[in-house]
Amino acid sequence: MFFLCLLLTFSVGRAGTISSPNGDFQLSFSLNGKGTPVYELRYKGKTLIGESEMGFDIHAGYNLKKNFELVDEQADSKDEVWHPVMGEQKDIRNRYNEYFVALKQDSTGFQMNLRFRVFDDGLGFRYEFPVQPILRHFIVKKEYTQFNLGEDYKAFWMPGDFDSNEYPTNTSKLSEIRGMMDQAKKEGLACQSFAEGLAVQTPLMLKSPEGVYVNIHEAALINYPAMVLNVDDQDFMLSAQLAPDYEGNKAYLQTGSVSPWRTIVASDDARDILASNLILNLNDPTDYSDTSWIKPCKYIGVWWEYFTGGGSTWAYSDELNIRIGETDYTKLKPNGHHGANTEHVKEYIDFAAANGFDAVLVEGWNEGWEDNWAYMKEHIYSFTKAYPDFDVEELHRYAASKGVKIIMHHETTSSVIDYEHQMKDAFQFMVDNGYSAVKTGYVGKIIPRGEHHDGQWMVNHYLNVVKTAADYKVMVNSHEAVRPTGLNRTYPNWIAQESARGTEFESFNGNRPDHTTILPFTRLMGGPMDYTPGIFEGDLSVYGNNKAKLSSTLTGQLALYVTMYSPLQMAADLIENYKKYPDAFQFIKDVAVDWDETHILEAEPGDYVTIARKAKGKDAWFVGGVNDENARVATVDFSFLPKGEKYLATIYEDGKDADWQTNPKSYNIRTVKVTSKTVLKERLARSGGFAISVFPAK
Amino acid sequence: MFFLCLLLTFSVGRAGTISSPNGDFQLSFSLNGKGTPVYELRYKGKTLIGESEMGFDIHAGYNLKKNFELVDEQADSKDEVWHPVMGEQKDIRNRYNEYFVALKQDSTGFQMNLRFRVFDDGLGFRYEFPVQPILRHFIVKKEYTQFNLGEDYKAFWMPGDFDSNEYPTNTSKLSEIRGMMDQAKKEGLACQSFAEGLAVQTPLMLKSPEGVYVNIHEAALINYPAMVLNVDDQDFMLSAQLAPDYEGNKAYLQTGSVSPWRTIVASDDARDILASNLILNLNDPTDYSDTSWIKPCKYIGVWWEYFTGGGSTWAYSDELNIRIGETDYTKLKPNGHHGANTEHVKEYIDFAAANGFDAVLVEGWNEGWEDNWAYMKEHIYSFTKAYPDFDVEELHRYAASKGVKIIMHHETTSSVIDYEHQMKDAFQFMVDNGYSAVKTGYVGKIIPRGEHHDGQWMVNHYLNVVKTAADYKVMVNSHEAVRPTGLNRTYPNWIAQESARGTEFESFNGNRPDHTTILPFTRLMGGPMDYTPGIFEGDLSVYGNNKAKLSSTLTGQLALYVTMYSPLQMAADLIENYKKYPDAFQFIKDVAVDWDETHILEAEPGDYVTIARKAKGKDAWFVGGVNDENARVATVDFSFLPKGEKYLATIYEDGKDADWQTNPKSYNIRTVKVTSKTVLKERLARSGGFAISVFPAK
Repeated sequence: MFFLCLLLTFSVGRAGTISSPNGDFQLSFSLNGKGTPVYELRYKGKTLIGESEMGFDIHAGYNLKKNFELVDEQADSKDEVWHPVMGEQKDIRNRYNEYFVALKQDSTGFQMNLRFRVFDDGLGFRYEFPVQPILRHFIVKKEYTQFNLGEDYKAFWMPGDFDSNEYPTNTSKLSEIRGMMDQAKKEGLACQSFAEGLAVQTPLMLKSPEGVYVNIHEAALINYPAMVLNVDDQDFMLSAQLAPDYEGNKAYLQTGSVSPWRTIVASDDARDILASNLILNLNDPTDYSDTSWIKPCKYIGVWWEYFTGGGSTWAYSDELNIRIGETDYTKLKPNGHHGANTEHVKEYIDFAAANGFDAVLVEGWNEGWEDNWAYMKEHIYSFTKAYPDFDVEELHRYAASKGVKIIMHHETTSSVIDYEHQMKDAFQFMVDNGYSAVKTGYVGKIIPRGEHHDGQWMVNHYLNVVKTAADYKVMVNSHEAVRPTGLNRTYPNWIAQESARGTEFESFNGNRPDHTTILPFTRLMGGPMDYTPGIFEGDLSVYGNNKAKLSSTLTGQLALYVTMYSPLQMAADLIENYKKYPDAFQFIKDVAVDWDETHILEAEPGDYVTIARKAKGKDAWFVGGVNDENARVATVDFSFLPKGEKYLATIYEDGKDADWQTNPKSYNIRTVKVTSKTVLKERLARSGGFAISVFPAK
Repeated sequence: MFFLCLLLTFSVGRAGTISSPNGDFQLSFSLNGKGTPVYELRYKGKTLIGESEMGFDIHAGYNLKKNFELVDEQADSKDEVWHPVMGEQKDIRNRYNEYFVALKQDSTGFQMNLRFRVFDDGLGFRYEFPVQPILRHFIVKKEYTQFNLGEDYKAFWMPGDFDSNEYPTNTSKLSEIRGMMDQAKKEGLACQSFAEGLAVQTPLMLKSPEGVYVNIHEAALINYPAMVLNVDDQDFMLSAQLAPDYEGNKAYLQTGSVSPWRTIVASDDARDILASNLILNLNDPTDYSDTSWIKPCKYIGVWWEYFTGGGSTWAYSDELNIRIGETDYTKLKPNGHHGANTEHVKEYIDFAAANGFDAVLVEGWNEGWEDNWAYMKEHIYSFTKAYPDFDVEELHRYAASKGVKIIMHHETTSSVIDYEHQMKDAFQFMVDNGYSAVKTGYVGKIIPRGEHHDGQWMVNHYLNVVKTAADYKVMVNSHEAVRPTGLNRTYPNWIAQESARGTEFESFNGNRPDHTTILPFTRLMGGPMDYTPGIFEGDLSVYGNNKAKLSSTLTGQLALYVTMYSPLQMAADLIENYKKYPDAFQFIKDVAVDWDETHILEAEPGDYVTIARKAKGKDAWFVGGVNDENARVATVDFSFLPKGEKYLATIYEDGKDADWQTNPKSYNIRTVKVTSKTVLKERLARSGGFAISVFPAK
């Protein structure tokens, strides 16, 4: 790591300008006539983000928005390479030029600073609140940060909501959002709290009429609420709207702190958006002294059977009067179809061991699921007491004997204070019983009541869980948590999150055929997603009365192991379905989940994504391609392979008659020789996909 | 304990009637024409509470109020004597007749039961929600319980408020409350949340035009919000209003539970109100197997000096940037006037040891007081880290060597989730360092934000603290908590509470001269109060710029040790003031705090109270008398003494020229011989008082 002190100097005044190292971006800062901080961002010589205001309303009628004077400016720069514990590549370059400005408010003496970092692929900036005599604790009532697009961009959006990121993504012009919003909000989600006015979630993917791709999100969301974006569909000005608490307060802050970074990743090549590490780079390096316990994980689980309609339940009993801590479960009458029973879990452990999986997730192992729908009940689950038919010690012994881990499950049903009370005991219980990773869940309305999933209090909670888990060397996979912002760099045991519409919605007929061509540009900009792909039997009517059908072909499911980056990947389907298709299942067995290199081969949000990755520490390569409801031919240029070496590529592709709606399980597998000079054309069915494993030719 | 099965039987119908064992009270229950449960209470042949409705609105448009049918009735009765761990008497008789009715709602099938207990001094009734197939979890949106007075009673009231019980008490007719309410609300309290409409706090003391005294409150407030009373000042109908959460929900309940008891204590002799044990009797017996660690306590403390204006501070430093868990206090600059320093605490320990006190309270011992005004900050204090100048180990050793306990202090500034996180560690820290009692504090707005001090969540919190403390054999003295409801019977380590306007308000000129003649009829009906009496130097201008003056005479302060029952009693003044008046101080040294017998000699709310009590396990008696701003002559009839025995009574009385405003420190001490036949006349100055210690004549 090295620091390069820029030779640029600024005269202290009202404005400053700085460019990205490659010169593509130019950031200008100034104070406007009202003393309001404003910035502007240019890309390749043209205005990308027009003059945009910054600042806050704070408590008791004060603001941090007007009447500022510039009291100091500093420039800095960095060019370093760092190595994530797990990631899409082993080397990440962090190169930027920085502009720092210290402001003081004329009328009050309040101080506020701004820090801008201009990278080769975009901009990050944040607010900083220095320790000062007359401002110590304050409440953020409103953040004003603007993103002045100035044009009617195409947007990949979902409704601004402080409690859910599980909407499908809509594609329209900014000017069309208003007309589509009411319909977009009509989703049967467990907890919805719409943002005020016309607002959309981040990461927001945009494309300008001129073909410039822009992604707006945030980095390092710590002790602050998540941001949604107000849409001014007259002037095409976006602006921050923060998740509130019950009385509309956004953040309770103390000076000596900073805001999250507001991020703008932009390029005229959509592949650069997916290749960007800007958000990770704006997060701090980890200070974990030992990361040897943080490991990638491919897993199966007692999970999908709860969604199929086959009758398996999380709950152990149908009795009416359950009180955690008081009810003696050994005296309850079992309902006879509890999924997480010892014998059934052993079947999963056996299958995992036989097929090289690292772990088995088990949901429904613990006392309390009888009341899991009682969203506003405070004490629902025990996280240290297993159901009578789930033998913790025997399963610990059995799994260990097979070299398989069991993944713990902590569904909180958002009774979060209670979870915090139990958390340390729960992690100790995990340590005592050989668990090294936990899936957390936050279905339903939050307790503390009046808080939102994406508000400051919960943002602090999720991180508190991750940091506490680290004390016990436990990895965390958060479901229904706030969308990620690159904190997995700083807290690498935050191995993955859901925080979007995952595979479970396939069981409600809920995912659109273009869904996985958009997610890499939206949700995955912030960090890895536990999307839980790998559904081979997409017709759920085979299990009973569920009429849902999968939104992709079978090989489209295989492609997701490459296109949806996560160091934690599930093979979500039932064992019986993998046994029916052993040749296709071979790809899931082979595919890596941690990588040395990533190459974005093709990308257009909403249409297609083709990605190639090199397995971490191995001479093995995997390619995945997905598309939307339009069949297409992908071009796979193998120039990412080492020159002069020969490889065998096994291609898992849609059958000629494959179609996500009419024939999703038609697939073909073939093996071809490839080198770095090979260029293959791969046909994808409607909402189809292909996957390729590439191993050295022997 | 024995149960007497009443021979009364009821034909299952729509009504039932039951009388108190002494026949004074008669309770009638029926379902009115709408199928709404109603009750009526008669006293000595006349209607006391006219027909009054009962029931609830619950979630989603359902109610538990109308269309009920009576499906079962049962009668029961009890007459037992029980012995409190600490109390106003060693034997408490629990005698009542009970009427139980099971109801079922025609339209929904919902079941709700009612249980009435009629005592010789009043009525208690509660709602019961049996386990049932179609109602499992529900939200109480509104409770309708009415108390139909039907006449314009005189009331001793304070504004209905969900966050404070620290108002002065107003005296007026019910019909006059409306005109006085705006003024009554104008109090500079740390946290105020007014109830809706015209409402007043319980315990509400009332007196009918005919001279019947009525006290309305509740017993066994568990997992439910506290009740305030709506005042219908046309029809003189009171009705329940429950403390809400942020969105107006009152209670989140599960069937298989009960409501608190609604209590009506009544008599035509005001002394019977003070003598009543109805509220204690409606609470469950304790199930603590060992109560040997629960002990009465007379204490002094590093406390009043923070209020005098003398400059002593809770905070150790004046620095600006304090973050609990991060700030290294040993590197902070001390402010030079931190009260809780080792040397100063040792002075208190020495004085306590020399004068027979059990303990020394120390406030300001722990890290975080620099931000104690930052009411909405979440992490303010550490409860396990002492300030650098407070040597925990040395003070533990020193106090133990002198036979004195230090009382722990946990001010939370209502950052309650954080307190719950720290609580077990904090109690373990206490055990490790020899503390056996804690004073808790809840100044300011509650976190979880949107909750109220008197709402269901906080009601559960206070009890959670008490129950957790019991696991560590720690006694709890809660300040700013919800008003007590007799739970000290069930949880005897809940040794005392504040929950009213205590002595601290004397430092703001805030207590009225009749204040302590009302509190026994209001706040103390629910349980013992840590009023912290014993201020000898009532003119605070002696310390600096504080112009406040005490609202009573010096001997009025002595009387409070008898009239304000608490097994935890403070001598609140500075050591220097006790040293100035050693003869008066002798009463504080002598007076007991736990009792075998209590005799209410005289009582009229708002005017005067005279009480005699026998020390627990000793042939020693103490009498106290207080009055309002009108001088009076009290009659002390010593017939409570054992017949034929001779005693010496030391009388601490107002001097002839004593007056709370002009000459509060004028007092006279004299000793007289008394027997059970003695009747003394004692003159009380304006807002004066007297105290008498009675020991056997040698």
